[in-house]
Amino acid sequence: MGISVVQRSKKTVPTDHADPLAMLFFARSIAVVGASRSDDSIGGRPIKYLLKYGYSGKIYPVAPKYDSISGLQCYASVRDIPGPVDLAILAVSAARIPGVIEDCAAKGVPTVVIFSSGFAELGEDGRQAQARLVQRAEQLGVRICGPNSMGTMNLRSGLTATFSAVLERTHRAGPIALVSQSGMYGAYILAQATALDLGLGLFATTGNEADIELSEVLEHVVRDSETRAVLAYVEQVRDGDAFVRAAETALEHDRPVVIIKVGRSDIGARTARSHTGAIVGSYDSYQAMFRQFGLISVDTIDDMLDIAKLLEFSIFPAGKRVGIISLSGGAAVMLADSCAASGLEVPTLSEEVQARLKRRVPFAGVANPIDATGQLFNDPEIFPEFLRALVDQEDTDVLVLFFGQMIGYVEGLGSIVVSESVKAARDSSKPFVMVAMPGDGRAAQMLKEGGIPHFTDPDRAIRAVAALANYRERREILLRRKQTGRKVALSAIPRAEVDTELGAKKFLAEHGIRVTREHLAQSPEEAVCHAETIGYPVVLKVNSPDIAHKTEVDAVRLDLHDASAVKRAFDEILRSVADRLPDAEVRGVLVQEMVSPGVELILGVKRDPVFGHMVLCGLGGIYAELLRDVALRRAPVDQETAAEMVRELRGYWLLEGARGREAADIDALIDTIVTLSNIAVGARDWIEELDINPLIALSRGRGCVVADALIQRISENGQ
Amino acid sequence: MGISVVQRSKKTVPTDHADPLAMLFFARSIAVVGASRSDDSIGGRPIKYLLKYGYSGKIYPVAPKYDSISGLQCYASVRDIPGPVDLAILAVSAARIPGVIEDCAAKGVPTVVIFSSGFAELGEDGRQAQARLVQRAEQLGVRICGPNSMGTMNLRSGLTATFSAVLERTHRAGPIALVSQSGMYGAYILAQATALDLGLGLFATTGNEADIELSEVLEHVVRDSETRAVLAYVEQVRDGDAFVRAAETALEHDRPVVIIKVGRSDIGARTARSHTGAIVGSYDSYQAMFRQFGLISVDTIDDMLDIAKLLEFSIFPAGKRVGIISLSGGAAVMLADSCAASGLEVPTLSEEVQARLKRRVPFAGVANPIDATGQLFNDPEIFPEFLRALVDQEDTDVLVLFFGQMIGYVEGLGSIVVSESVKAARDSSKPFVMVAMPGDGRAAQMLKEGGIPHFTDPDRAIRAVAALANYRERREILLRRKQTGRKVALSAIPRAEVDTELGAKKFLAEHGIRVTREHLAQSPEEAVCHAETIGYPVVLKVNSPDIAHKTEVDAVRLDLHDASAVKRAFDEILRSVADRLPDAEVRGVLVQEMVSPGVELILGVKRDPVFGHMVLCGLGGIYAELLRDVALRRAPVDQETAAEMVRELRGYWLLEGARGREAADIDALIDTIVTLSNIAVGARDWIEELDINPLIALSRGRGCVVADALIQRISENGQ
Repeated sequence: MGISVVQRSKKTVPTDHADPLAMLFFARSIAVVGASRSDDSIGGRPIKYLLKYGYSGKIYPVAPKYDSISGLQCYASVRDIPGPVDLAILAVSAARIPGVIEDCAAKGVPTVVIFSSGFAELGEDGRQAQARLVQRAEQLGVRICGPNSMGTMNLRSGLTATFSAVLERTHRAGPIALVSQSGMYGAYILAQATALDLGLGLFATTGNEADIELSEVLEHVVRDSETRAVLAYVEQVRDGDAFVRAAETALEHDRPVVIIKVGRSDIGARTARSHTGAIVGSYDSYQAMFRQFGLISVDTIDDMLDIAKLLEFSIFPAGKRVGIISLSGGAAVMLADSCAASGLEVPTLSEEVQARLKRRVPFAGVANPIDATGQLFNDPEIFPEFLRALVDQEDTDVLVLFFGQMIGYVEGLGSIVVSESVKAARDSSKPFVMVAMPGDGRAAQMLKEGGIPHFTDPDRAIRAVAALANYRERREILLRRKQTGRKVALSAIPRAEVDTELGAKKFLAEHGIRVTREHLAQSPEEAVCHAETIGYPVVLKVNSPDIAHKTEVDAVRLDLHDASAVKRAFDEILRSVADRLPDAEVRGVLVQEMVSPGVELILGVKRDPVFGHMVLCGLGGIYAELLRDVALRRAPVDQETAAEMVRELRGYWLLEGARGREAADIDALIDTIVTLSNIAVGARDWIEELDINPLIALSRGRGCVVADALIQRISENGQ
Repeated sequence: MGISVVQRSKKTVPTDHADPLAMLFFARSIAVVGASRSDDSIGGRPIKYLLKYGYSGKIYPVAPKYDSISGLQCYASVRDIPGPVDLAILAVSAARIPGVIEDCAAKGVPTVVIFSSGFAELGEDGRQAQARLVQRAEQLGVRICGPNSMGTMNLRSGLTATFSAVLERTHRAGPIALVSQSGMYGAYILAQATALDLGLGLFATTGNEADIELSEVLEHVVRDSETRAVLAYVEQVRDGDAFVRAAETALEHDRPVVIIKVGRSDIGARTARSHTGAIVGSYDSYQAMFRQFGLISVDTIDDMLDIAKLLEFSIFPAGKRVGIISLSGGAAVMLADSCAASGLEVPTLSEEVQARLKRRVPFAGVANPIDATGQLFNDPEIFPEFLRALVDQEDTDVLVLFFGQMIGYVEGLGSIVVSESVKAARDSSKPFVMVAMPGDGRAAQMLKEGGIPHFTDPDRAIRAVAALANYRERREILLRRKQTGRKVALSAIPRAEVDTELGAKKFLAEHGIRVTREHLAQSPEEAVCHAETIGYPVVLKVNSPDIAHKTEVDAVRLDLHDASAVKRAFDEILRSVADRLPDAEVRGVLVQEMVSPGVELILGVKRDPVFGHMVLCGLGGIYAELLRDVALRRAPVDQETAAEMVRELRGYWLLEGARGREAADIDALIDTIVTLSNIAVGARDWIEELDINPLIALSRGRGCVVADALIQRISENGQ
């Protein structure tokens, strides 16, 4: 499935009109409960905005006090409304909400948006009230957006089920949807989009998410045929599975989702917790999920809106190769720098083309970036020639043009540059992006009509292009992987005794992961006997359910070469443990093969509170500590994903055997990751955390061996 | 010297009016050679702009064809001008420039700006013409800005010695100077500044820098009393010493210099080379220099102008502690995230204050960030109370306020927020920064008058604040270091025989750096004899001027424990070298002590083509390869700078002895760096590169030992 071949219809109402989620954006009739004549109250604003934005459906103010508001007839209760009601906006106090929900159910209203605060955000009492509300609504079959939501909008149809004062100004409708867990910040993003002349279409703020939550809205919105892309402001995901479904649907429908996940720092996460009260999961898990499921992750709203600008112009670079033409050598350097930093390529033009351009302007830069120099002022005909050379170059996917302030400031040159650019863009299948300040005049209008977006800052332009080029590449990989990947049915793995190293490793070995050969000894003599069976040198370690970090209590002896060393080590280990942890239960001493040198890795499984079991792979030892050079994915991971995790490591070259080192058995490593991920899924009901540290990757063809492992079970009370 | 106590005078002419550099900005009379009646030519524009910008000095068009231009009397030659000429603008063809320079000298013109291209940028012929020009001008005592320069400006006085069409529009004057090596990009920065309502003052573009170059202009500009800060667009520095002088002057005068150095990527550097033809030095060296000399380095013009905005408002945060108040919980989280990412602190409010605020708004976030919530709409009086709490907090240095679009969109609340903010800012010595879209109306005006800059993106606001907080901290450290640091007079170190490991290490040892005990052996027996003197275990290595990487030819044997092992190793090494490099000159085999385990580091000296000898310190082995975890400084470095280099390493904690490891002898490491840097200075005439790899840092009190070293001398032809 190609990425840019997306069918888009002109219809404004989705196929499945019975879907309660659809009512948030496509309701044909809206009741405003708690409607007010005061224009500036939360019960007055929705009516004001619905009228202002020309909503064509029915508006039913529910307000016992009034006969009419703004010429609309009022009703005492939702039950009294004559026609069907697709959506009810609830702008009454928290205490009155339960009663209104009963009314809505009686009237057959499928969906309500609750503006009212006074629920979970207030503490324990509020949480209980909210839980009761949701339970009752579920019985009654009414879906809730909120409470404490700022509402939803469809700027295309004028459905403005919101009290946000951002609608005091007029916002142009467009093909980009916005889903925000912060009402206020969502409105701010809308205001910024408008300042940048970007049009949003569907817009939802999900409030406390007592019922309808982010992922469900996301999944709904990416299915909308008139939505080209979605921006998402995320504080926390509540349902990992639903989130995955939404992401997969977006990928299938080729709707880029540009996501900002706030709370990346400790202080940010702490602030988010106090703000939402939710368990947010680890930021690393979120980033891993975004990568695994093809979402575009950004750190700032500037980045988000820059990408949105390209999407509004339907700029989908087919690849990562950029052709650059610039009026300024300095800008050419900056653009090239940005491409390199963003992982884009700037392919060199062919010798013939370079020679041809050089003949035209001897002091021009002609390699790509093309630096047309100020000569352009004297001889504007250079521009179409140079531009043509770049467009014709087969190995460029997207063109970036730098013209600084000239277009806006110098009428003559500006109109040549702009009209030639627009002409070239029209004749080419490659997208054009301009870095310039075209001002507000005719040049800007021509660029807009010609489908060429412009940015002021070169780096921002390139970052946005890179984000979409990456998205495209990523999407193709993930869709292909999904098609070719075998679906393995994973059966549940029963609980096992895994509370010592020996137990954990036996468990791993039983499920297909190679561990060190080892036996448990209860006496020095038995240890020697095992050592001779295994073959010297050996390793001795205490085996105890109470000692997670054996080296810290000096209970490990490596590289023992003979019987006397083994005996001595046995005694020393027991003495050391007795000294330092007299209460620890010691279940003997483990006699273990000493694995040949190889690359040390760590492998792990950790249960994320939101996304469930995540699998981790990283370089071992001080690397892990110093670099946090780890790759993370949600289990299960298939072969290709595991291979990707390994390649992602900055220390990958160590595994590849650079600089005279032997290459490690990367295939075996990948198999081990896949097997581990299957164990994680099979044992998800009882494994909290699993650490393999180290896993030793031997040289190619010799496999990987678990040298130590630790498994922590989910505690009995479920935590 | 405090940072914000800067004396600023109202005078527009600098004290030393005889300074030829001053003429670029403060000339009282200007000759325009090659003046034209055509408004749009490079000889016509300067006159048009000087008149438009109200330049109050004398303007002398030099144009034999005309009697007058725009009412100004024309002259046939500079020599014919009646009064003195402070500055001549040369807008004639390259061929005519030498003659005009003679005229200028005859007239006593101290400084010329040459617009004309056709010199070094054209290739070898042009380079020679330029060299001849500079040589003659030097004889004549005429200073040149250019050729191929876009000119200079002083927007405060209307001196616009430029042909840049950016002056087609009007630009407000302000306290920020701009020095740009790209004329075109410099003009674009000016246009962007104007779009952001920032005022620039002095502005120079240096063109080919045949004579006057960046650093000299920089040093001049930072001495200007009405310039508060300098923005610098840099492609390459030509004179490292002059650059250091400029940076030190800037620091002394407390003029923050915000610098963008383009060419950070390979492709960018290649583009820059083809653009300027200059040897640009390594990007790492530039960044090290910026850090060492207290310049603010940015990657994008957005970042540069964000910082300039704070400087225009005289925002100098006294420290890194930020108080945040927000209308939106989401924005509070984003601001906290940004602070963490930028190294700023968000100190928690005291329990009492938190309790007080919580009583006022039970569901507000009160820890800092303060999340005032939408409750602010219902009860705007909350705002001054909450703000007061934050301002009164002793441990905040700067206040960041988030109000999104509300200020611009909601008249009532907006004016309360703005007027209360302005009042609080006026009463406080702490700077205020707002994140908001105040629109173009009264709110924006009030903020501006109240001295509160505003940003749309939270992350950009925080990054700018962090840059200035870092600048302040860095400046204090560097000034203190300069005062307290002992100046050591370093005498030249004569050339030595350093072409083998033995030679290099003897040289290091003679100059105070501890190396392994070692002796050269010519036979297996001699090797054993040395081994017994040194004590087992020992290391054997080939000693040859032709073998830089001994392990690559298998010519190193470690950990030899007895005589037979030594003998065998001796033979093996010679055999291996004879097999693999039969032509290598072998000067025996080095018998070396086997150093106890410690932390492996690399230390080095490298001659940068621009900045001279740079000293490098990093973690050794695969760290160095994997991480490029190195600190770099220009030699000489003092004790404190060396200590800073060591602390800067990401692997510093390895040296500190975390996780049960012994702490390394950091003091000895610092001493070694200082000694090495002194060697670099003493031997700068003949050492090209010096690599110590590894240096072994033993445990605390036991010192550091050079285990291997390689010195490359500057080749005889100077390269």
